[in-house]
Amino acid sequence: MNYKQLSGLIKKKRSFLCIGLDSDPKKIPGNLLTSDDPVFEFNRQIIDATIDIAVAYKPNMAFYESEGIRGWKSLEKTIDYLGRFKDSVFAIADAKRGDIGNTSERYAKAFLADPPEGFGFDGITVAPYMGNDSVKPFLKYSEKWVILLALTSNSGAFDFQTEKLENGQTIFETVIRKSQEWGTHENMMYVVGATKAEMLAVIRRIIPNHFLLVPGIGAQGGSLEEVSEYGMTKDCGLLVNSSRGIIYASDKNDFAMKAREEALLLKNKMEHELYKYGVI
Amino acid sequence: MNYKQLSGLIKKKRSFLCIGLDSDPKKIPGNLLTSDDPVFEFNRQIIDATIDIAVAYKPNMAFYESEGIRGWKSLEKTIDYLGRFKDSVFAIADAKRGDIGNTSERYAKAFLADPPEGFGFDGITVAPYMGNDSVKPFLKYSEKWVILLALTSNSGAFDFQTEKLENGQTIFETVIRKSQEWGTHENMMYVVGATKAEMLAVIRRIIPNHFLLVPGIGAQGGSLEEVSEYGMTKDCGLLVNSSRGIIYASDKNDFAMKAREEALLLKNKMEHELYKYGVI
Repeated sequence: MNYKQLSGLIKKKRSFLCIGLDSDPKKIPGNLLTSDDPVFEFNRQIIDATIDIAVAYKPNMAFYESEGIRGWKSLEKTIDYLGRFKDSVFAIADAKRGDIGNTSERYAKAFLADPPEGFGFDGITVAPYMGNDSVKPFLKYSEKWVILLALTSNSGAFDFQTEKLENGQTIFETVIRKSQEWGTHENMMYVVGATKAEMLAVIRRIIPNHFLLVPGIGAQGGSLEEVSEYGMTKDCGLLVNSSRGIIYASDKNDFAMKAREEALLLKNKMEHELYKYGVI
Repeated sequence: MNYKQLSGLIKKKRSFLCIGLDSDPKKIPGNLLTSDDPVFEFNRQIIDATIDIAVAYKPNMAFYESEGIRGWKSLEKTIDYLGRFKDSVFAIADAKRGDIGNTSERYAKAFLADPPEGFGFDGITVAPYMGNDSVKPFLKYSEKWVILLALTSNSGAFDFQTEKLENGQTIFETVIRKSQEWGTHENMMYVVGATKAEMLAVIRRIIPNHFLLVPGIGAQGGSLEEVSEYGMTKDCGLLVNSSRGIIYASDKNDFAMKAREEALLLKNKMEHELYKYGVI
C-alpha cells in the first residue's frame, strides 16, 4: 500500500486506529478453546468486529513465535485472512528486526514479500542500532514500509534513545535524521511513543510529512489529544495503536463485541481530531 | 551452561570457535535435496563434522524464518540435535530481538526456555535500543545468556554505535556501561566485531571478564591474532564466529569434510592463541 492509498483509507474510515494483535493463548475466552486454532479464531473475530473502524492491524511476532509451529500457523492464517481485505487494511509485522545486510534481506523476504515467498505484510518494525545496511534491505520492496524505532513508549527508552550526542541532538533525533538518507515519507515511518507526546513537536520539525506509528495510548498512559495536537499532518500522518485495551476488553465470550466497543470509542475520538485539524 | 562450564569447554576443546548456521536452502549441495529436510540434514552433517572442534553453534534465525513453517521445523530439529551434545556445545540463537517488557518475555520464552516451552538455546543475541526493560526478561533464565549488541561488524555500525555522547563516550560504550546494572559476566556477553579489534582494548577496560561474541573473522576481514591480543582474558572470554567461511567452504557433496578442514584451520590458530596467552 502506498502513501496516497494509506492516507485515503484514513479519510474514508475516518480513523487512524491500529489494533495490535498481541494474542496470548492464555487470555483467549474459553468458548474458542475447542476450535482447531484458537488464536486464529480469536484474531478473526477481532478483525471481523473492527474491520470498518480500524485502518491497520499489527500482529506482534513474539506472541506467535513463542508458540512454535502452532503459533506460526496461526500467524499465517491471520495474515492470509487480512489479505482478503487487501485495499482496506494496512498490515504491520511488529517484529523489531535488524541485522547485517544479508540477514536483513532474509527478514525482509519473510515478512514483506508477497505469498508464497513471504507473509506479504505492508510494513515491518525495524530496530536501527545496526545502521544503514541493516535497514536498507527492507526498503527494496515496492509499496512496502519500514517502520523504524525512534522513541519508544517503554521506560527503557530513557536508557539510550534520549541521551544527547556531542552535537546536542538526542540519539532518537539522530536516528530520524540519518535515516532520511535511506528512504522517504513514502516508504518509511517511525515509532514514536504516545507517552512522550511533547517530543512530537521536535520530531515534526525534522519530518513534517512522515507517518508515525504511535503506541502507548490507553494502558501506557498516552493521550490521543496530545498526540494529535503535536503529531497530526494534513494527511493525518499518524497510526495510533492500541493492543490490550481493545483485544482484552473482555475475557468472556463477548470479547469481540467489547473489542468493537473499545475500538469505536477510540475511533470516535480520532474522527473528532481528524475533523479538528482539517484532515476530513 | 554457566560461565565455569563454558570456560572449561574452551580449555577442553582448545578452541573458542562458534560456527554460524546461516543455512540457505539455495546453497545446499544437490545430494541433500532429496532428503526430507535438506536444511536440517546440512546442519546435522556440519555439526557431526565439527563437534570436536567447535565450542558453539549459532543458527541465524532469519534463514529459518524466511522459509516459513518448513524453516521453523528445520530449526527445531537442529536445536534438538544440538541438545544431544548438551554439555559439550553452547547453542546461540542469533535473533537480535528486543521489545517492550511483556514482549521480550515472550521472545525469552521462545528461545531460552527448555523444551517443550521453548527451544532451549543457551544464549540469544539481543538489540539494546529499547533499553533495560527490553533486555531484563532474557536474564530471568538460570544459566542462560543475553548476548547484547555493542559494536557490530557491519558498515552500518558507524551510523550510530560509534557516535559520541556529550560525555565523550561512544554509544556502544554507553550500552556496555549501562547494561552492567542489568546482568553480570555470568549471564551477559557482548557482540563486538572483529573488524574493529583495536576497540577491544577500550572495551576490555570496561568489562575485563565478560565473554565477547566476535563475528567478522575471515569473509569480513577481521584478524584472529588482533582479536586475541586485545580481547582475550585468563579464561579466554571470546567466542569467535565464522559462518560462510566454514559452512560454504564447498558447494559440493564434500561440503562437510571441507567445513571441517576450514574449522580445523581456525581451531589450530585458536589453540595457538590460547597457549600464547596462558589460557591452556
